[in-house]
Amino acid sequence: MAAAPRWRERLFGLFFLSHIPLTLLVDLPALLPAGLRPRALAELLQWYAATFRDPLMLQPPAWFKAFMYCEAFLQMPFFLVAVYAFLKGGCRWIRTPAIIYSTHAATTLFAILAHILFHDFESEHLGPQTQRERLTLLSIYLPYLLIPLLILVTMLYNPHYNHVEKRKRK
Amino acid sequence: MAAAPRWRERLFGLFFLSHIPLTLLVDLPALLPAGLRPRALAELLQWYAATFRDPLMLQPPAWFKAFMYCEAFLQMPFFLVAVYAFLKGGCRWIRTPAIIYSTHAATTLFAILAHILFHDFESEHLGPQTQRERLTLLSIYLPYLLIPLLILVTMLYNPHYNHVEKRKRK
Repeated sequence: MAAAPRWRERLFGLFFLSHIPLTLLVDLPALLPAGLRPRALAELLQWYAATFRDPLMLQPPAWFKAFMYCEAFLQMPFFLVAVYAFLKGGCRWIRTPAIIYSTHAATTLFAILAHILFHDFESEHLGPQTQRERLTLLSIYLPYLLIPLLILVTMLYNPHYNHVEKRKRK
Repeated sequence: MAAAPRWRERLFGLFFLSHIPLTLLVDLPALLPAGLRPRALAELLQWYAATFRDPLMLQPPAWFKAFMYCEAFLQMPFFLVAVYAFLKGGCRWIRTPAIIYSTHAATTLFAILAHILFHDFESEHLGPQTQRERLTLLSIYLPYLLIPLLILVTMLYNPHYNHVEKRKRK
């Protein structure tokens, strides 16, 4: 039986561990009506959006909001399971859920990165105005494409994970 | 060994078979600069967009264009394989690729359906203007969410597909 890729598993475990507070403190409050946001979180969101000229969080377009709901209700429960599975290590049963998560997350990031790179932000006072600001904002989102892609490749091609899945039902 | 779900496989095979000309004749020409589109296809696109008030094809926002590139370069090769696998039937090796395809496609459709339902189209002369036009347009895209979800559920839970995967490498 091939050994589990321990360093990558630790990286994935820490990625999901760091994603939980990020989702709870930044992404979920952005889904609440502005009046219902806890003040400290509203300020954090304002600061982040202004500093990195991120137009998506404070004035989310409908397509981006759909992804935020996915993050809250589909990804968030998976994060808890994934932290356990990857920090423990060697858990083959995470393969299919991890393939689904990573494909879903990478797909959302294709759309987000294309928007950051190519959308015309001229008429929006939030949003990057120079190429440099676009690239700064891009660099914030980029890890959320790259790590899922690495998870996907690991689940598909690492000999430990690309292995007989136990039959669960006849 | 559990029997393959033949009716569903036939449905999936026909879905992918119908998707190939659709992608070639409608979606790919929309990626070409307007001047390079074959005239008959440009007219087809114009007719479709005007009839169903679809603003996405003729003036694709950056995030939607990213999905069209995915369709051209990631989904299209898969369609050919999937037609073969599902019309032949019983091909367990399609499971993981089909999970990836269906998760990816369903994710793009979340964004597209949210845009159709909730985006403010008032300033765009294309685009649905009434609730009824939104729902008509929605009904055109909806099968491209529902069939992938049915594929995903089938790959995850049907006893024929949710089965030992042969080990490909040591």
